[in-house]
Formats: sequence, structure tokens, C-alpha cells
Amino acid sequence: MKEIKIGIIGFGTVGAGVAANLLEHSEMIAARTGVKLALAGIADIDIKRDRGVNVPKWLLTTDSTELIMKSDIVVELIGGTTIAKTLILTALNNGKSVVTANKALLAKHGEELFAAAEKFGAEIFYEASVAGGIPIIKALREGLAGNRINKIYGILNGTCNYILTRMEREGLDFEPILEDAQNLGYAEAEPSLDIDGFDTAHKTTILASLAYGKWFGMDPLHVEGIRGISLTDLRYADELGYRIKLLGIIKQNDDKDIEIRVHPALIRKDALLADVSEVFNAVMVNGDYVGDTMFYGRGAGREATASAVVSDIIDIARNLAAKCPGRLPAFRAGKLYRNILAIDDTFNRYYLRVQVKDVPGVIAKISAVLGNKEISISSFIQKEGQSQDNVSLMILTHQAQEKLLKAAIHEIEQMDEVSEDVKIFRIEDI
Amino acid sequence: MKEIKIGIIGFGTVGAGVAANLLEHSEMIAARTGVKLALAGIADIDIKRDRGVNVPKWLLTTDSTELIMKSDIVVELIGGTTIAKTLILTALNNGKSVVTANKALLAKHGEELFAAAEKFGAEIFYEASVAGGIPIIKALREGLAGNRINKIYGILNGTCNYILTRMEREGLDFEPILEDAQNLGYAEAEPSLDIDGFDTAHKTTILASLAYGKWFGMDPLHVEGIRGISLTDLRYADELGYRIKLLGIIKQNDDKDIEIRVHPALIRKDALLADVSEVFNAVMVNGDYVGDTMFYGRGAGREATASAVVSDIIDIARNLAAKCPGRLPAFRAGKLYRNILAIDDTFNRYYLRVQVKDVPGVIAKISAVLGNKEISISSFIQKEGQSQDNVSLMILTHQAQEKLLKAAIHEIEQMDEVSEDVKIFRIEDI
Repeated sequence: MKEIKIGIIGFGTVGAGVAANLLEHSEMIAARTGVKLALAGIADIDIKRDRGVNVPKWLLTTDSTELIMKSDIVVELIGGTTIAKTLILTALNNGKSVVTANKALLAKHGEELFAAAEKFGAEIFYEASVAGGIPIIKALREGLAGNRINKIYGILNGTCNYILTRMEREGLDFEPILEDAQNLGYAEAEPSLDIDGFDTAHKTTILASLAYGKWFGMDPLHVEGIRGISLTDLRYADELGYRIKLLGIIKQNDDKDIEIRVHPALIRKDALLADVSEVFNAVMVNGDYVGDTMFYGRGAGREATASAVVSDIIDIARNLAAKCPGRLPAFRAGKLYRNILAIDDTFNRYYLRVQVKDVPGVIAKISAVLGNKEISISSFIQKEGQSQDNVSLMILTHQAQEKLLKAAIHEIEQMDEVSEDVKIFRIEDI
Repeated sequence: MKEIKIGIIGFGTVGAGVAANLLEHSEMIAARTGVKLALAGIADIDIKRDRGVNVPKWLLTTDSTELIMKSDIVVELIGGTTIAKTLILTALNNGKSVVTANKALLAKHGEELFAAAEKFGAEIFYEASVAGGIPIIKALREGLAGNRINKIYGILNGTCNYILTRMEREGLDFEPILEDAQNLGYAEAEPSLDIDGFDTAHKTTILASLAYGKWFGMDPLHVEGIRGISLTDLRYADELGYRIKLLGIIKQNDDKDIEIRVHPALIRKDALLADVSEVFNAVMVNGDYVGDTMFYGRGAGREATASAVVSDIIDIARNLAAKCPGRLPAFRAGKLYRNILAIDDTFNRYYLRVQVKDVPGVIAKISAVLGNKEISISSFIQKEGQSQDNVSLMILTHQAQEKLLKAAIHEIEQMDEVSEDVKIFRIEDI
């Protein structure tokens, strides 16, 4: 039986999970695949600390280059976009295939890495870079490859979904829940990457690139995070039959123009995606033949991420055994869209919360401004029992163009009767 | 660019969908994969009837053998286990790879077909045989290949799920909904294959085989359908916080023994699987590393099934282009379990509905019988406001062995106070 040597670079949480999996499941994987995976070594700058996995001492090394040289497949799990990039290029330049979970690196330097892989006859697989253990990259590149992709909606960041789930269930505001999540290890001390939407954006641009045949990077993405979500809006959304989720959104319209964006959105509570709670991730893909599909699972964590990394290792090992490296290139350019729409040019439904002084005529004035911008209202609620100086008006709109909506909001915010900036969330009818 | 010739045998619903997809998406697929798929022909005994897809006349033929000879990949979509088998063997014997959606044939003759494929260097792919457009076979064989599979729960038959959804939502009994489903084309005139659980069983045995490395066929499966589900039980289940779904169930316990079975089961309403309604399918897979995952989508229909067939065609085409047919064998034997448990040896929680005459002491007698068989009760409800001659007792049990449960039920049914056979459903804590 062919033996494939695996070198892991980065003995952190995920590295420890991958090592544990390979040590525990080598025989099972051989039974399933006909290929024996052998752990060649684990490189890290710190090889003393206990990672809770029983690895023979001689497998540990601080010399990642040496480990690359004696491996068939190199697993990059150190993260970041500098040393990780150098190490991956070293591996590829030496014809070693690479598995990585590094979404930030891929989003930024994917094309350069893919070109190196092709040049040197090596492979890069990156299933773990999006939605952890969920095999969504395989689904897009293979399982749904016969579909034009109409829409993708992803809950792609467990930290944000955890915070929103707890805010909604416990009726607490963003800040205290974030603090608790940090104490529990569900959020980083520097939480910006997660809660400002950038992590979701890294994942979203990878999914969009696979769907539409161009490696987009970060530039075309409109990105908003969850800091601006208040308990007030979660509650009003709930009353209206919606939940608020941070979504990666990718859409193609009938003119073949596409949108790629990340922001909180209201989705109906009866949508399956609305039931994805806590740290779980899910990706809803609508293809022109398959219709609606959804892929659900753990988006992070030692074991779930290891599951995705090991599935990539198995894919490469099968290619090595069958002597067809490059059978499935890391990425194949082939443009399947017309233009990328700027956020201002997109059409959306909106949830607006306007805080007003309850004086006669204010509703008429706001309605008139919206009407002048061709924004029609699908629902209008004024809550009773509030102070007359600060009344909440909730307005749900029909489809409207973002730039007209913004212009209308600007006018509304100038009114003397309006006491705060208008809160705006897009509504996605999934 | 390499061109791969596709021959479709069977111009029914799915055949028409596959033809439409290949004609519509040939360029898109070439952009994604670097392989050009060309429709070589469509064989059927009836090539006159309009299938609602605009196929050039010269592609249609009644000579399936001739079509096989001029194809690189043969798509078998005629169904049944006789002619389909002959045609697939003809294709394989001539080194042509095969895509099929024929779960009944695979369940019955899978090993023979796989052996022929291996002997002649051809491939068989069968993604469309389980859960329609959902790429669940790919997930099990590839995306989750690094996991020991602990549990699989599948809603695998759209007809049954549609009937149960409507019974629950509309409060109507099984028979009128079945009749309506037949009129709407959601159920066959001869509905037994679907509603008696056999279709679900064909799919379940395929999933179990892939998870545990033995082609099980139908013999080890315990199969029950949905005919015995009454509105009464759906309502009581609902009051208790459960829905009833027809599930394909595959489990492995800590001793590595496995269970493979198909039957209606109560699942908690807050489980994601409980929200899978209408004709949709979903498969929940729990792996030891990935944890819980769920795969959701359309389980049948022209377009969704075509999506799965075309993804298989693309997989084979990639192998042909990379010159590695056989890279992923149709099935690889490699036993990953100890024994298969008979249903009597399994442990389950149960929902029991006992219809009794409301005389003093009856509850004590029933409880005593259950207690004597080591069956402990987790919930006991007697509904008020019924006729005293026919009172419903609902009993939910803790884990109990099936054979002890059956013995207890047998005793209970002998009691003078018990007026009907006890209704029994297993409860699955997903």
C-alpha cells in the first residue's frame, strides 16, 4: 500500500487536531482509501508546550524547512500572511502539495500561490478555510459543479453567530456578551477580525471566486460587522418575524451581474438558516438545477477543522496514488459573470428604525421622502407606550436601490423631528 | 480541450433534465473544469414523445448498445434491476464508465457491478441514487473521509416527507393526503416502494455501506413505512414537543456494533432535521471529528437529480482528462464495524400509546409490566375529556432494549382493560 508522508507546520489548536486524527485514524483511512497516511513530523517554534495530544517526541521539530523536504504533503496551520506564505511557496517550489486553512492568506495571495502550485506540479487544497468541517468547497467545486450559482448565503463566523444567538436568547446587549465570549474563549481578545466581518469576508470571497471563476480578493467586497446591532433591533426584528444574522452574501441576477457582500441581515425565522445557532456555521447554495441546498456544521474548533484538513490530505493522497496531481486545480479562472455591482447599485429590502419626536405630520413627512425616492413601504409600525419625545418607527420597505435609500435616509436624518441616526438593516428573502 | 462524449440511456424525467443541463451548461462546465462535455446521444424505446427539452432529433436513438459504443460515459436512467443491469454491464465490459441513479439496482447488485467496473478499468458513480441533488455520497466518501461515523439520520424520501408534512399542517389523515399526493404527482399510483420504506432503505443501505466498508444489501435492514402513522399520534407527538419523520438510521455504538434501519421516529421539534419539510431531503451525519453536520436539498425531481448526475459526469470526465480512471473506486471493502445488531437487540427510547378502559388500577398494572422488563418511564400522560371506555395513555420511556419492550407490549395487549393494539414509535434524540 502506498504510504504518503504528512508534515504539519504549526502545532496550535488545529495542528494538534490534525495530528491526533492522523495518529488515531490512519488504519481506518487506509481501509477507506487504499492509501496509508504517515505523520512525518510536526514543526513549531515551541515544541515543549503540551497540546493534549500524545505525539511521539521524535516527530516534533523546530525546523520547518527540513520537515517540508521529507514530506509528500505539507499542512500549513500557522496562520498569518507572511511566514505562512514563504513556507507554502517553499513547499510548492519543491513539488510538495499543500493543505491550508489560511483564508486570510488565500484571500490576499491566492493567485500567486495557485500559480506556483501549477508551475511546480503540486496541489493546494483549502477546504478548512471556509466553514470549518463543512465540505462546502468540495460541494461548490465538485458536487454542484453542473449548476449556475444563483445565490449563496453563509453564516461563516462562529463567534458572531454565538454572540447574536446569546443576545437574542438572553436579552443582553452586544458588549457584555462579547466580554463573556472572550472569557469563554469563543472570541479573541482583539475581536475585530471576527466581529467587524473581515473573517466572514475572507471566506465569502473564496466562495464567490469558486462560483464565478475569478479570484476576487477583498477589493470588490462590501463589509459590515455586528457591532452596530442593538438588542432593540433584535427585538423588533423578532416581533416582525425575523432574526438578524451576519451573512456572507453572493448573488447573481438575470443580467449575470454579481454582488459579493458581508453584513448583518434580517432573515425570516422560518428559513432553515435562521435556525443555525451558537457557534455553528451553515451555507445555503441555490443553483439553477439543484435549487436550494444547505450545508451545516461546526465552523471552527480543533476537531471539526481537522476533519476538513484531513479530507484534503486524503484528496491529495488519492491523486498521488493514482498519479494525477493537478486533476483538480486549486482554482481555475473562467469568468462566469458580467459585472460586480457596487453596493450602491444593489436592490434590497430594508428594515429602518427611525427615532422621532411624536408630533403631528412626521409620518407623512418620512413617507413622502421615501416615496420621492421610489421606495415603497411594505410595513410601517409605530410602537405605543413610549415617551413622546423618542418614538420608534419601524419601516420595512419593498425592493429599493441602495443609493436611493441612502439619499432618502440622509434627508430623513436632517428633519428636526428625527432625533437619532436611522438604523438600517437589509432584509434577505432567503 | 479534451472532449468527453456522454450517452444518456432513458429519456424520462431525469434523462430530460440531464440532457437539458448538458446542452445548456456545456460552456460553463468547460470553464470550470477544463473538460468539454458533449452529448453523444439519448436512447429510449420511445423517441417520439415530447419531454419538454429541445434536443436535436439526430441525438435520439432506440439503439442503446450503439450509443454505449460511441460514448465515453454512459448515464443509466431507465431504472429497474434487469435491463438496466444488462446495459450497465455492457458499458463496463467495453471500458465505458457509468453514472446511475438506480438505488434499487445498486442495493441489490452493487458488488457485481463494482467488480465489473474494476475488471475493465471503468468507473461507476451514483451520487443521484441517494438524496437527489444533495452531494451526500461525495461528502461521505471524500469530505468526511477522516471521520469515524457515529450516526447518520436521513430524511430520504420526498413522498413520505411530503405526506407527513401535510398531515401535520392540515390535520388530515394519511389516506386522503396520499390520494391527493397521487393526484399531484408526488406519489406513485402504486405507492408501496415509497410509503412502505423500501426506497428509503435502498438509500440507507448505500450510505451505511460507504460509512462502514461493507456492501450490505437489503438483508440486514429493519424496514417500516409510514402507513401506520395516524393523525392522533402526530398530534400527541406535537404536544410532547416532537415531530414524526420517516428516517433512515445508521448508528455505531462504542463496541463498534452497528444498526441500520428505516422507520418513523419521533424527533424533537428543535432539531434542525425536524424543520425539513415538504419534498425536501436532508442527511445528518455525526462524525467523531467533525461532530454534527447536515446536508439539505431536493431529494428528487428532474433538475435536482440532474445536478447530481452531472456532478458525477464531471468527476469521471476529470479522471479521464487526468488519465486516472479508478482514482476513487465505486466502493472499497474494508470492514469498519464489529457486528450488525438485530432490531431486537437495539436500545431505544419509545413513545407508546395505549388505549384503555379507564378503570381503577390500570395505570398501576401497565407501569408494573414495564418495570418488570426494566423499562423506565420518562413521561406519562393521560388525556382528560375522553370517553371513559377508550382513554389514551401516552408513555415515553427511557432507553430500553427492543425485545424487552416488545415482550412488555405483548403482556399489556393481553390485559382486559386494553382495547387496541399499542401504538409504538421509537424516539431518536438527534
